[in-house]
Amino acid sequence: MESTTFVLFGATGDLAKRKIYPALYNLFVDQKLPEAFRVFGLGRRELSDEAFQTSVEQSLRKFSRREVKDPVLLNKFLQTFRYSVLDVSHKEDYQKLLQLVEQQEEELRMAPNRMFYLSVGPEFFETIAASIQESGLGSASGWKRLVIEKPFGHDLQSARELNNNLSKSFTEDEIFRIDHYLGKPMVQKLEMLQQSNPVLQALWDNRYIANVQITANEIVGVEERAGYYDHVGAVRDMFQNHMLQLLMMLTIHLPNNSTSENVRFKKKLVMEALELLQKEDIGSHVVRGQYGAGTIQSKPVFGYTSEPNIPADSSNDTFIAVKLQIDDYSWRGVPFYIRTGKRMKDKSTRIVIEFKEPLKQSKANDDTKKPNLLVIEISPNEVISLQLNTRNPQNKGEFKPMHIDFHESGDNVPEAYENLISDALHGDSTFFAHWDEVELSWQWVQPILDAYEENRVPLHLYAAGSNGPTESDELLAQDGYHWWFDEMTEQQIETKEGEHYAYHTNN
Amino acid sequence: MESTTFVLFGATGDLAKRKIYPALYNLFVDQKLPEAFRVFGLGRRELSDEAFQTSVEQSLRKFSRREVKDPVLLNKFLQTFRYSVLDVSHKEDYQKLLQLVEQQEEELRMAPNRMFYLSVGPEFFETIAASIQESGLGSASGWKRLVIEKPFGHDLQSARELNNNLSKSFTEDEIFRIDHYLGKPMVQKLEMLQQSNPVLQALWDNRYIANVQITANEIVGVEERAGYYDHVGAVRDMFQNHMLQLLMMLTIHLPNNSTSENVRFKKKLVMEALELLQKEDIGSHVVRGQYGAGTIQSKPVFGYTSEPNIPADSSNDTFIAVKLQIDDYSWRGVPFYIRTGKRMKDKSTRIVIEFKEPLKQSKANDDTKKPNLLVIEISPNEVISLQLNTRNPQNKGEFKPMHIDFHESGDNVPEAYENLISDALHGDSTFFAHWDEVELSWQWVQPILDAYEENRVPLHLYAAGSNGPTESDELLAQDGYHWWFDEMTEQQIETKEGEHYAYHTNN
Repeated sequence: MESTTFVLFGATGDLAKRKIYPALYNLFVDQKLPEAFRVFGLGRRELSDEAFQTSVEQSLRKFSRREVKDPVLLNKFLQTFRYSVLDVSHKEDYQKLLQLVEQQEEELRMAPNRMFYLSVGPEFFETIAASIQESGLGSASGWKRLVIEKPFGHDLQSARELNNNLSKSFTEDEIFRIDHYLGKPMVQKLEMLQQSNPVLQALWDNRYIANVQITANEIVGVEERAGYYDHVGAVRDMFQNHMLQLLMMLTIHLPNNSTSENVRFKKKLVMEALELLQKEDIGSHVVRGQYGAGTIQSKPVFGYTSEPNIPADSSNDTFIAVKLQIDDYSWRGVPFYIRTGKRMKDKSTRIVIEFKEPLKQSKANDDTKKPNLLVIEISPNEVISLQLNTRNPQNKGEFKPMHIDFHESGDNVPEAYENLISDALHGDSTFFAHWDEVELSWQWVQPILDAYEENRVPLHLYAAGSNGPTESDELLAQDGYHWWFDEMTEQQIETKEGEHYAYHTNN
Repeated sequence: MESTTFVLFGATGDLAKRKIYPALYNLFVDQKLPEAFRVFGLGRRELSDEAFQTSVEQSLRKFSRREVKDPVLLNKFLQTFRYSVLDVSHKEDYQKLLQLVEQQEEELRMAPNRMFYLSVGPEFFETIAASIQESGLGSASGWKRLVIEKPFGHDLQSARELNNNLSKSFTEDEIFRIDHYLGKPMVQKLEMLQQSNPVLQALWDNRYIANVQITANEIVGVEERAGYYDHVGAVRDMFQNHMLQLLMMLTIHLPNNSTSENVRFKKKLVMEALELLQKEDIGSHVVRGQYGAGTIQSKPVFGYTSEPNIPADSSNDTFIAVKLQIDDYSWRGVPFYIRTGKRMKDKSTRIVIEFKEPLKQSKANDDTKKPNLLVIEISPNEVISLQLNTRNPQNKGEFKPMHIDFHESGDNVPEAYENLISDALHGDSTFFAHWDEVELSWQWVQPILDAYEENRVPLHLYAAGSNGPTESDELLAQDGYHWWFDEMTEQQIETKEGEHYAYHTNN
């Protein structure tokens, strides 16, 4: 692999400590870093190289999926880290950095390939990118790459402005937009799952699929991000990026041995085929929710507007459920239901593909048969399972569902950031968000943002610890479907008192 | 359920003890016998009712899948058993039996429904059936049913003669021909597997299936049946009945909620669509084998012609592999490979469905991908597994097969004879061999029998403990396929010495 200088803005920040250093360390142990590899950590604080290395070590001990054992290996890893003070708005700091980088490249005879990782707030993206360009840091004879994380804008217009500004310093090919959902191992398998399995490929369209349900439910509430989150909501924080990316990864039809260009091209096609919501459709296709007080794991919790730093009259959304249609030859007629929320009953990110039952219509009384389901569980567990019907030999009239599960073996699975950083080091942009996708996502979401802004969509309160507003269930019920695998909430259990049920039965 | 008198010919025989009594007992415990139910055991030996009941009890203790625990229950069960001496050729014995049966029906006020189970050699079938008719045993106002087991004839002509004779006393609807493979729980699921699962239904034809492999391998040799087996061979003992029945059950396309008439009709269609082998095709479509000396589970064993009671110059077949084609809209172009043999490396009855790889042709170097397989293991374990490809996240270029398995839960699964006897008691003929199927099977097999007779097919010796003659592998290799999941034989392992391999790796 080509020698690389990894320039990290925000080196003392939380993301760096929790994700980036552990990822680099595990890549190092797996011998997946370039042989010539150096890190420049940047921050506003004064810090010696040694103190910086110590803080990196601490983050590894706390957050690495691998236990840090071998002191020789650890030391070799830490030796690649240098620290430099930088105020993002001070041009002379970039000059100083350039000197240090060039000096090191010369000393170590490294080709001047530079990766700039912006682990800082989005308000600094444009300044930093411009300063990299102006200072000459981005003008070496090697390659340069810019790694940034969401948010990429706040709406369609601001996203376009951001992109315009970044593209003055970096070409699209040089920009690696991290959507960490694309780094998750199961999501990375998604793209290949149908492509490499004729059996799934045959089933992967509107002839066989009745509907698709994509869920990303969290148990946590707004936590310490209150100030930021209250201006963003579920629609921007989760839906516009992660959820639409999952939709794209699931629905693209790739040729064999596809390149990252194929992937981007096909994802763009999906977004272009996504039926735009007309103003009058939004009320019937979008459910906007906010959690009220409730019970999570038997403990009472506050409602959203009682959380610290949230205004008591906030109408911010903590839940969204949307019904989407992809108007192309493969997916026309298949509703996609997407939902994501905070303070839900369960923590689960999963995709459920419900297959059609062509024979069922001809016969009324075979209620014992369940639809065939392909369930792709992304987190907390990585499981693919297929639910089929089998006849119960004890009782010939009855069918029972049969689950065939695939669990990823081994606990040694790389984390999202390892996959993504490794790809960026290789210049492989397959699992990064292309500007086209970002722009088309904002474009699709913009009418929803407008409707929220103008209060044309009711804000439904839902109890913390529930499955979201009942309107979310109605979204599917009006098409004859229901959300699969929602566990019953405590409220539902209370109202069912006296009836016979199993607490953990899936519906 | 209607009251039933169960008249068992061959009540002191091996099949009765091993299978029929345990099956009746388990049906009794499961409350699946008619409330008014009586057994008349018949045999040539003099035996008191008490001695008969004791021998039934012994067979339960030895062969029942359920432990015999409750003495009250056991006693109630045994009280249903009476014994009567009968010589199948003595007409007066049938008269005596009729009196006993009528007497009991009157005493217990049972409707005169009589099931005649012929657990005797096939040479007695016609005599017994005729005598039942002549004696008036078969002339009561209730229903009568005849249960017989293979062999149903020795070739097409003798099968027709047998059927002609039986049909003088019993109509086709009254004849229940047991093929115990049809009673196996996994085979009973087969019929419903595609019908009740749209996902499998979509894949269940020549658009997606590359080939189908049906294997029934035994480790045992000819054992104590030498005299009989040497006149029968693998083609008559296994292929004409069990293997062709498996083929039918796998390939029928059933409407929803199908009746036993549907099943019979569809099975007949499959047999009619089976391409007849022309005289000149037999050499290239049929592999005839006989085991020689070899090693089974590290112990040396005799070759077939050295077995007790087998002539040293016997050319009887202990192995057969056949390539078949079903010429209908669904299956045209899909080769079916069927094989069965004694003294094979493994004991396994299974069906492997290998799916096509439409994308593979376009790309040479994706050897890491394996075909998708649906494996239906019938015995010794009941497992359905689907082999898919998943990308190894550690090494992006590589695919690894992913197995999703379904194991039948619970050890409390009824045995084949329970299912079949229960069905016969209900008059449900779904899982019995209809005369049409038997006749068409013999018709299909007859050219092979003729070719064997005239020695137009070479007899290939194979080592005991191997996977059969190499010609069986070539049968698939000429189409570009191979038998899946053949474990390597010790011979193969020896010849591979020095190479790197895993002993238990499936190929």
